[in-house]
Amino acid sequence: MSAKRRTQYVWPHRHILNLGSLTAEDLHHILETARGFESVSTRSVKKVPALRGKVVANLFFEPSTRTRSSFYLAASRLSADVLDFTATSSSTSKGETLRDTARNIEAMGVDVIVVRHQQSGAAKLLAGSVGCSVVNAGDGQHAHPTQGLLDVYTIGRQLGRDDFDFSGLRVAIVGDIAHSRVARSDISALTKLGAKVLLVGPATLVPGAFAELDCELHHDLDEVLESVDAVNMLRVQFERLTGPAFPSAREYHKLFGLTKARFARMKDNVLVMHPGPVNRGLEIDGEVADGPNSMILQQVTNGLAVRMAALFLVQGASGAIDDEAQEAERDA
Amino acid sequence: MSAKRRTQYVWPHRHILNLGSLTAEDLHHILETARGFESVSTRSVKKVPALRGKVVANLFFEPSTRTRSSFYLAASRLSADVLDFTATSSSTSKGETLRDTARNIEAMGVDVIVVRHQQSGAAKLLAGSVGCSVVNAGDGQHAHPTQGLLDVYTIGRQLGRDDFDFSGLRVAIVGDIAHSRVARSDISALTKLGAKVLLVGPATLVPGAFAELDCELHHDLDEVLESVDAVNMLRVQFERLTGPAFPSAREYHKLFGLTKARFARMKDNVLVMHPGPVNRGLEIDGEVADGPNSMILQQVTNGLAVRMAALFLVQGASGAIDDEAQEAERDA
Amino acid sequence: MSAKRRTQYVWPHRHILNLGSLTAEDLHHILETARGFESVSTRSVKKVPALRGKVVANLFFEPSTRTRSSFYLAASRLSADVLDFTATSSSTSKGETLRDTARNIEAMGVDVIVVRHQQSGAAKLLAGSVGCSVVNAGDGQHAHPTQGLLDVYTIGRQLGRDDFDFSGLRVAIVGDIAHSRVARSDISALTKLGAKVLLVGPATLVPGAFAELDCELHHDLDEVLESVDAVNMLRVQFERLTGPAFPSAREYHKLFGLTKARFARMKDNVLVMHPGPVNRGLEIDGEVADGPNSMILQQVTNGLAVRMAALFLVQGASGAIDDEAQEAERDA
Repeated sequence: MSAKRRTQYVWPHRHILNLGSLTAEDLHHILETARGFESVSTRSVKKVPALRGKVVANLFFEPSTRTRSSFYLAASRLSADVLDFTATSSSTSKGETLRDTARNIEAMGVDVIVVRHQQSGAAKLLAGSVGCSVVNAGDGQHAHPTQGLLDVYTIGRQLGRDDFDFSGLRVAIVGDIAHSRVARSDISALTKLGAKVLLVGPATLVPGAFAELDCELHHDLDEVLESVDAVNMLRVQFERLTGPAFPSAREYHKLFGLTKARFARMKDNVLVMHPGPVNRGLEIDGEVADGPNSMILQQVTNGLAVRMAALFLVQGASGAIDDEAQEAERDA
Repeated sequence: MSAKRRTQYVWPHRHILNLGSLTAEDLHHILETARGFESVSTRSVKKVPALRGKVVANLFFEPSTRTRSSFYLAASRLSADVLDFTATSSSTSKGETLRDTARNIEAMGVDVIVVRHQQSGAAKLLAGSVGCSVVNAGDGQHAHPTQGLLDVYTIGRQLGRDDFDFSGLRVAIVGDIAHSRVARSDISALTKLGAKVLLVGPATLVPGAFAELDCELHHDLDEVLESVDAVNMLRVQFERLTGPAFPSAREYHKLFGLTKARFARMKDNVLVMHPGPVNRGLEIDGEVADGPNSMILQQVTNGLAVRMAALFLVQGASGAIDDEAQEAERDA
Repeated sequence: MSAKRRTQYVWPHRHILNLGSLTAEDLHHILETARGFESVSTRSVKKVPALRGKVVANLFFEPSTRTRSSFYLAASRLSADVLDFTATSSSTSKGETLRDTARNIEAMGVDVIVVRHQQSGAAKLLAGSVGCSVVNAGDGQHAHPTQGLLDVYTIGRQLGRDDFDFSGLRVAIVGDIAHSRVARSDISALTKLGAKVLLVGPATLVPGAFAELDCELHHDLDEVLESVDAVNMLRVQFERLTGPAFPSAREYHKLFGLTKARFARMKDNVLVMHPGPVNRGLEIDGEVADGPNSMILQQVTNGLAVRMAALFLVQGASGAIDDEAQEAERDA
């Protein structure tokens, strides 16, 4: 991307609902913005005043501690106030619709709604109902855009692709592709940045339709091990293990688990990724999950930076980041 | 109210437990204070330092996301720290009494306790047990003073009665008056400001005793439609629908629902109010709830301003509001 | 402790897991640090910037409102951001181990994890898994160090032992010593500061092994009443009342309850303590719990100061306290 284009670029999105609707240029911009925020989490005073006096509402209809906490801390690090609006304690139990809930939250002066919901499309429905910004934190099997962003951010930073040009990289995603919002967002981000994506899993869980997304489909993990630069081991959802399309846990581990033996056949600097929380001994062996190639905790750390970038950009504060960071240092 | 009286007035209440114990002058003062805070929620940095270093505890024994969130944001906007002390996670499950819980919260250095409880009188009991301030966020069927305040605030602002002199206004409250703390607080505020209140509902739910409050009692919604300037449609509590005093949902809607047809007969600029969350198609038709006369979201927005005023005033910081707002602007 | 030694002393502990691993000098230092923070809770702006930009995570696997709230407010008063990571909403329900949870929290840039867990040793396990600081908020029957600290802090401040030299003091702990983490932490702190500890309860609940801790063991409350300077009445855990080792509630009260009659035989200025919440009429009569010798609410207040000290010291910011306090005053 030339300096000229960069100068003219202005972030155009009020919402981040899925990565399919972002251009490669948008992806580059959000990843570079995250790059600027990365250091905030490691310095002594982990705060910039970028969103001071703004309110971010966490509206979670599915239980989630990790993603909710990550957004909470990302917002706090930007000095926003965070309203925790969990579904269990929510008035949706009184029969209020999602749309009404969102409008009420907006009416309280909230600037960004971060939403997780079990229904695909819930984030989009919400965005169409309110005037404030919406960031999708996972909707059904549809999308989990900030997970996709933190995954490509991690790959770029760890493989020395700081320009986020992934040409020539091969990345495998292993597991229940069919039902995974993480897979969908990863595929979208990786292909736009130029990587080749390999989808690996039982035929029942890797539908042929995914070939249209320009991905390679594989049903044998062993045949892709040597060639990939990164592998993302999807979490097995225990509730699916009893389903007819899913092998038993023992068989799943045998066929698609990233065992120590399989890991030994991979490239020396291969990145082992997992969205967490890990089922050790099921989709991945504990030794591999805890080994030197594991990016699992780095993914968590990077999640903060990309979520700070997401919240910051949808608020339309583009360009002010350098000033804000300087002001934070002065305050400290 | 003359400028002379205004100058001498000092807000006298450490607690806000019900509107019955406030004078008309108190009401005017809190509504005018809210008027001063209204703009805080719309500017870029939604924060004033009025309660910086103070602690507000939300002590909710009934599930409530909307009111709890409203108080949380009101306190945050005043720069207070907010302690969320919900009943489910509370030590009251270990047998601790309400009084002990309150004293413990106070002993931690809390400045204001915002309490919601299923028992009428709980807020008063609490206020008698602690030295800090108490704001009632709804106790049983007794009172919900900040809801009453935001209702009259909305009427005053929307009908151009910025002096909150409601002489000549007619306001209907429709539904289960007998069991509604919202109705009680509305009646108290409206009558003190000079409005005539019409209570409308089945005879079983609008006891004759309410006539003593100087209200008109009606059992036929159709006979009041044309004459009122505002109508507050109370939420039907589903758990009451099975009770003997309550008509079926279908019959309730037919007799007391604000249908499109009924709305068509009302004044052009009538205010349609509802404390939320709305049961569309039961007490009110969706088209009316979402129509241009609907104040429902405006009520939510105004709730922030009146709750900021309530928290600010009970803290005895009266008079500093203008300085604080200026300081906030400087900080921003 | 001489001024010379004091000047050279540097707080050495990254974690506070139990009081057994602290020296008497460490105890003195943390209590004196708490002394410096005590006034923060009583002044108008209850905030110092000591931990601004730091993050404290409350990781509670047992329900606790009081201790969790106390740590929340202590951290807020130091200007830290607080992440609430409760077990019910936590991903540990997805099979994640305690160790994984802690590492994930750390990876988000958290500086201090405050942990409560039903398993003895959980806090130590956590501390061995992460690079950030860990403060134990109660692990099984093992330790509750900040409770021990606030208990000795209260005794020192109330009995005029501001140097926390407890030589000659006799302190009784009454109840289910065998299963109490409060008792263990109290014993450790009291003996190190020079007090004599009397453990009082049924033989089944005061095992002989405790004599090795240099404590007096008693099975008759009446024989110790006159001689003690303070008494800590442990809370009866109702779930234990059905156990074979435990007398009935009625019998417990008769034998080991601090009744009005028993209180009348104690020293005039005896301190009546209880970790809360109180079962009035079981381990202590209501009149005694609410009487002038009761320290129960003072203990809650002092809990804030010692927890501020604990969070501050493990963060390695020792020495900056005076500057910080001055800066806070300037800010206010």
